[in-house]
Amino acid sequence: MTDLFLTPRLKPILEQVQKFMREEILPLEQNFPHDWANIAPALEAKRTKIRALGLWGLHLPATLGGMGLSLTEFGQLSEVLATSPLGHYAFCAQAPDIGNTELLHQFGTEYQHHTFLQPLAAGKIRSCFAMTEPEFAGSNPTNLATSAVLEGEEYVINGHKWYTSSADGASFAIVMAVTNPENAPHARASMLIVPTDTAGFRIVRNISVMGEAGTGWLSHAEVMFENCRVPQTHLIGEAGKGFNLAQHRLGPGRIHHCMRWVGIAERALDMMIRYAMKRELNKGETLAQQQVIQHWIAESRANINAARLMVLDTARRIDAQGAASARSEISAIKFFVPKIMLEVLDRALQVHGGLGMSDDTLLAYWYRHERASRIYDGADEVHKTALAKQIFKGYEK
Amino acid sequence: MTDLFLTPRLKPILEQVQKFMREEILPLEQNFPHDWANIAPALEAKRTKIRALGLWGLHLPATLGGMGLSLTEFGQLSEVLATSPLGHYAFCAQAPDIGNTELLHQFGTEYQHHTFLQPLAAGKIRSCFAMTEPEFAGSNPTNLATSAVLEGEEYVINGHKWYTSSADGASFAIVMAVTNPENAPHARASMLIVPTDTAGFRIVRNISVMGEAGTGWLSHAEVMFENCRVPQTHLIGEAGKGFNLAQHRLGPGRIHHCMRWVGIAERALDMMIRYAMKRELNKGETLAQQQVIQHWIAESRANINAARLMVLDTARRIDAQGAASARSEISAIKFFVPKIMLEVLDRALQVHGGLGMSDDTLLAYWYRHERASRIYDGADEVHKTALAKQIFKGYEK
Amino acid sequence: MTDLFLTPRLKPILEQVQKFMREEILPLEQNFPHDWANIAPALEAKRTKIRALGLWGLHLPATLGGMGLSLTEFGQLSEVLATSPLGHYAFCAQAPDIGNTELLHQFGTEYQHHTFLQPLAAGKIRSCFAMTEPEFAGSNPTNLATSAVLEGEEYVINGHKWYTSSADGASFAIVMAVTNPENAPHARASMLIVPTDTAGFRIVRNISVMGEAGTGWLSHAEVMFENCRVPQTHLIGEAGKGFNLAQHRLGPGRIHHCMRWVGIAERALDMMIRYAMKRELNKGETLAQQQVIQHWIAESRANINAARLMVLDTARRIDAQGAASARSEISAIKFFVPKIMLEVLDRALQVHGGLGMSDDTLLAYWYRHERASRIYDGADEVHKTALAKQIFKGYEK
Amino acid sequence: MTDLFLTPRLKPILEQVQKFMREEILPLEQNFPHDWANIAPALEAKRTKIRALGLWGLHLPATLGGMGLSLTEFGQLSEVLATSPLGHYAFCAQAPDIGNTELLHQFGTEYQHHTFLQPLAAGKIRSCFAMTEPEFAGSNPTNLATSAVLEGEEYVINGHKWYTSSADGASFAIVMAVTNPENAPHARASMLIVPTDTAGFRIVRNISVMGEAGTGWLSHAEVMFENCRVPQTHLIGEAGKGFNLAQHRLGPGRIHHCMRWVGIAERALDMMIRYAMKRELNKGETLAQQQVIQHWIAESRANINAARLMVLDTARRIDAQGAASARSEISAIKFFVPKIMLEVLDRALQVHGGLGMSDDTLLAYWYRHERASRIYDGADEVHKTALAKQIFKGYEK
Repeated sequence: MTDLFLTPRLKPILEQVQKFMREEILPLEQNFPHDWANIAPALEAKRTKIRALGLWGLHLPATLGGMGLSLTEFGQLSEVLATSPLGHYAFCAQAPDIGNTELLHQFGTEYQHHTFLQPLAAGKIRSCFAMTEPEFAGSNPTNLATSAVLEGEEYVINGHKWYTSSADGASFAIVMAVTNPENAPHARASMLIVPTDTAGFRIVRNISVMGEAGTGWLSHAEVMFENCRVPQTHLIGEAGKGFNLAQHRLGPGRIHHCMRWVGIAERALDMMIRYAMKRELNKGETLAQQQVIQHWIAESRANINAARLMVLDTARRIDAQGAASARSEISAIKFFVPKIMLEVLDRALQVHGGLGMSDDTLLAYWYRHERASRIYDGADEVHKTALAKQIFKGYEK
Repeated sequence: MTDLFLTPRLKPILEQVQKFMREEILPLEQNFPHDWANIAPALEAKRTKIRALGLWGLHLPATLGGMGLSLTEFGQLSEVLATSPLGHYAFCAQAPDIGNTELLHQFGTEYQHHTFLQPLAAGKIRSCFAMTEPEFAGSNPTNLATSAVLEGEEYVINGHKWYTSSADGASFAIVMAVTNPENAPHARASMLIVPTDTAGFRIVRNISVMGEAGTGWLSHAEVMFENCRVPQTHLIGEAGKGFNLAQHRLGPGRIHHCMRWVGIAERALDMMIRYAMKRELNKGETLAQQQVIQHWIAESRANINAARLMVLDTARRIDAQGAASARSEISAIKFFVPKIMLEVLDRALQVHGGLGMSDDTLLAYWYRHERASRIYDGADEVHKTALAKQIFKGYEK
Repeated sequence: MTDLFLTPRLKPILEQVQKFMREEILPLEQNFPHDWANIAPALEAKRTKIRALGLWGLHLPATLGGMGLSLTEFGQLSEVLATSPLGHYAFCAQAPDIGNTELLHQFGTEYQHHTFLQPLAAGKIRSCFAMTEPEFAGSNPTNLATSAVLEGEEYVINGHKWYTSSADGASFAIVMAVTNPENAPHARASMLIVPTDTAGFRIVRNISVMGEAGTGWLSHAEVMFENCRVPQTHLIGEAGKGFNLAQHRLGPGRIHHCMRWVGIAERALDMMIRYAMKRELNKGETLAQQQVIQHWIAESRANINAARLMVLDTARRIDAQGAASARSEISAIKFFVPKIMLEVLDRALQVHGGLGMSDDTLLAYWYRHERASRIYDGADEVHKTALAKQIFKGYEK
Repeated sequence: MTDLFLTPRLKPILEQVQKFMREEILPLEQNFPHDWANIAPALEAKRTKIRALGLWGLHLPATLGGMGLSLTEFGQLSEVLATSPLGHYAFCAQAPDIGNTELLHQFGTEYQHHTFLQPLAAGKIRSCFAMTEPEFAGSNPTNLATSAVLEGEEYVINGHKWYTSSADGASFAIVMAVTNPENAPHARASMLIVPTDTAGFRIVRNISVMGEAGTGWLSHAEVMFENCRVPQTHLIGEAGKGFNLAQHRLGPGRIHHCMRWVGIAERALDMMIRYAMKRELNKGETLAQQQVIQHWIAESRANINAARLMVLDTARRIDAQGAASARSEISAIKFFVPKIMLEVLDRALQVHGGLGMSDDTLLAYWYRHERASRIYDGADEVHKTALAKQIFKGYEK
């Protein structure tokens, strides 16, 4: 791992987090990815320890009781957390809550801070984010049928969402809905906070994804909003600014995802190396002596190094100049990193043979679920076209 | 689909099978891949219909009540059966039974034919094949710790197997075990029939594979043999000839797998095309208009055509000259076809976006489970090296 | 090499051609790709031998003194000819003459047969084909600025062409020019025969391609037509039917190219194997023992087998039902085969190391010049889109 | 281009160099890659201007009249120089002289400094480096037959080298030869300075590489050493330390190459973008609107960014801790960067169609000659294995 982005204040934190992951989190993996109800209490206990160690809030600003690290610094921690599928949750830095936290922190009202943000940042509640609709391709986010009509001082929401991740057990959802249908496409939608116990909020099902419907944090819901009423005070920012907020939410969000993918790739590479060095083909002859496997390891090492540098250089740019100025870099990492992660996972699985197909390691879990990295938050194809168009704009000048 | 290998007798059968798949089997898919107990009765009913239509035994010789088709002819049917994960089972041509059927037919004694083969061919019982051991890399099949020691007229079997597919509910296993440890590596093992109700045969677990332990036919067991005794009459062929038998079993077996993979790829391509033509990005603009998706479809079409020609030309060679003379061709298709299938599946999934990740289509099922195609029956790497060495031998002459 | 398409009459011819290539043509390669003037006399001497052996006209119908083989049969010979860059020329089956021969045979008048076709088929003269224009992208052939205006009984041609291969030394060109500008785009152009000594026909230069301008048959000219007059009797077929003729010319033409590419790939693989088996890394340890090189060889073997089957199955379809009905298959092989050939060439070059970069073997020649296979006769991208659109049409029904 | 590695002192130099390249060097390209005698005088004139502008010695330490930039700083300039094949030569930073300069600066005696280094650094003479031998695979550099036997105070050199780049016109060669055959393999060879007018130094030929033998700086010679005598004072460093010196020479040398490849890729991407935005497929519809081309551009952009970060982070590590500690990183970029460059070149060529195959742009030149990047200074395969073995060592601890 390059030390190019390592800051003096980050160094000791990084070491503590690495130690905690190794000693406290990885041993929990043997219960994963089984039932959420089964694993949640153990994770709660780890959170208590994390607080006691002063490691709470790696991603939070000081005003929310956090460490106030830069995105570039947090990115390096996020990679470490991602080496286990339980890391981010243990440190309360898990999606989608981390994105909602950032959003509410930047754009929420005092009421919203007090009611929703503070318990969220404290890890007392969970939240979800309802944007994608099954009827519309995600590549054009302005295609949106969910409406929120202002009646008196209440918004009445109707619509159909899916892939509302972690809705099961969440206390509130942030919902994207059309409030200003008369506006231009990008100025039609708003974001609204909907407590999940509001009448008219209904989880249709936890979608079976890659064979698993999951529960709790580990699930992706299909949700109906049926005359679901929330007070006007639940509007985040201004009406019609939903897409601007989404851009803000997605900028650092993509860094979070990308660093998570780097961490997964790093872990998979580590597993591949260890297994190759141990597994014998014949007496005294290990997989590590196979030239093809050596080359997979070398290529994986180089690719992960590249991915990390790309993501952290993008984080640096966001820290320095804001997400808007790093738009091209963000598009680039969004398709660059998943390709590398999925390739490393595929090779690690292949090296493990039958064991790799089984759930006796985490490789099969990541192999099937992280396939979504090329789809959510914009499919590869969308980001590639977006980047090309940005480049063309530069040339038109 | 090329008509290059279509024979006059095959044509009407192929059409009937296509019709049956379309009308009777595909509608069952909505219950898949749920619990085996749930789907098995419906499949049993389909088998009755298949018998009534005179379509029983596509893969069986006439002496076993089958159609006596060549491997080249059956291959073309197998592709059609594979367009649904239930097709082969409905037609009683499913692995691992089809391989065991062929093996017993060629090498079984009259007693074995009567006791095991006939009910198997008739679809009254299921079987399994216990070869792989968790302690040894599959790339060298002569690494085998399971032993079968002759005591009087009984073999006493001890050993540890896994990926004994469909053991759950099977009536008997064919087990590879060392009977002649004093021989050269390739002459040490034998195949033995072990009824699953034999004392000392124990299913440790159905291995959780890609998130699913499965049940019944849809499972892969870890099995212990603990002083498990079978009469000497359960030996298939001669003692020490286990690997020769395995070669015989694997020759046509690889054709079966490969044609199945061609069928899956064909179905995935069909799904990709239909969805691309239907799914709108914006009003009136479908995914099918995206150049990248057009190219995926074109490349998939070309690759699947290539895969089919390769497999059927190999089948033709096996029919004409036996599996031994087609060794290079068999190695080639074993790594050539899975690559193509997995790539088509990956693209079809990507085109389907979030829907592709869900179990609302079959793509996610195939994506995760067919990943094993590059591992079982010899990993890609083993087959590539084997083919290269065959080629070098040709040059040494 | 599969014997699937081998016919009884082809077998002895194939063996003779293989022998002739091995004994007479390959020894000439050491003078290649030097100056055409240098190599042409030696090739003329080989042609005399070929006539004496009764091997003249592998690609010609009996009426032109040829063998009357099917396209599927000739394809298998074409592969063998292509194992040397001099093979096709020696057998008078070289592009672009072979395409012009077919075109004139099918659509030429008696006058054209007598004046142009017969000496061409007899190998007494050479010809060229002037279609591509530097100002227009090749992907839409109806973009064409060259005009041929009928004045009295003469066409007056004006235009600018390039990549008019082998124009240097050719006796006549077949030119695509707009004769009917008032028609729909696909009905505007015609094909005209222009003797190269006609006033107004001017070779601007032999284009320097990959470092070599070349001469004679081994060159690609930029050509100007400046008030170039030819009699109306030089029109091939009907006015406005130029694109229909081009389709006819390109159908078998693509088979020719594809089989040539299969032959090149086969030769490159042969060179890769021989060198790997001979070249020592250390005393007694050859490149052939490197697993990565073994896998390159295995993958190349599988891919070339696939390419050959694809092309010959397409030829079979053209033979049986005409090129129009094989449109999808032709598009598929046009992008499928070059990819495989170029990959094999790249690997063979890599195995040869510094020697591969040098002109001491033919690999560097093919590496640089056969890159054009993905461009001429339609870029990959054009064929992929064309195939996808054909597929969509099938689904619309 | 990331500003991550931009230092205050580098910024103005970088801008000046960019301007000089744009205004003075790129216009020379139209005469390239024609004869060296033709282009050399123009380049000499540019060198005069460069000296006048105070830009001489971007790569040189202050003691040699240079700027004393770090490797990380020079790397960023080297990328800019590489956007034209003439840039490095104009700035006297061309291989193989730059490597010889560094070597002599670090390890040369005062006599060697005065006699060879100073005129070399001043651009008055050229040099070459004779290491590779045709009889031995480059992957094991200790396989070396060239001997240098000490007779009195002279070394008598006998041996056969090739790919002695730029020997034609060079004033001296640095030769790797076995001086201590009795030592362990890595301690057998030494480096010796051989003036090219020494009796017994003979250029056999400029090897024809990718169709071009070239002349002068643009050539790669096959060289014989036949009882070639040099005084003992021409030994660089100690006898038997040749491989240590080679390691020193290759460390920064690989950074030079890699940054050069980044620059070529950047230029090719620039050409691809400009051509795509200009070239019309149909009236008003450019190649830039093709989704596939957009994606090529986006992927190329991301990959080049990754390559640059990787190389400069490696340079930073060499600057800080020396080349030995960056061994893994150097191996990684040696195979990571060429792959990216060659892919960008291939795509840029494809976008340019027939024009791309011609020498009317530089793409075809780079396409064919830069293929060697995967071979010289260690083939990809060697570096991948080396990196894997380094990784395994880390795990063994």
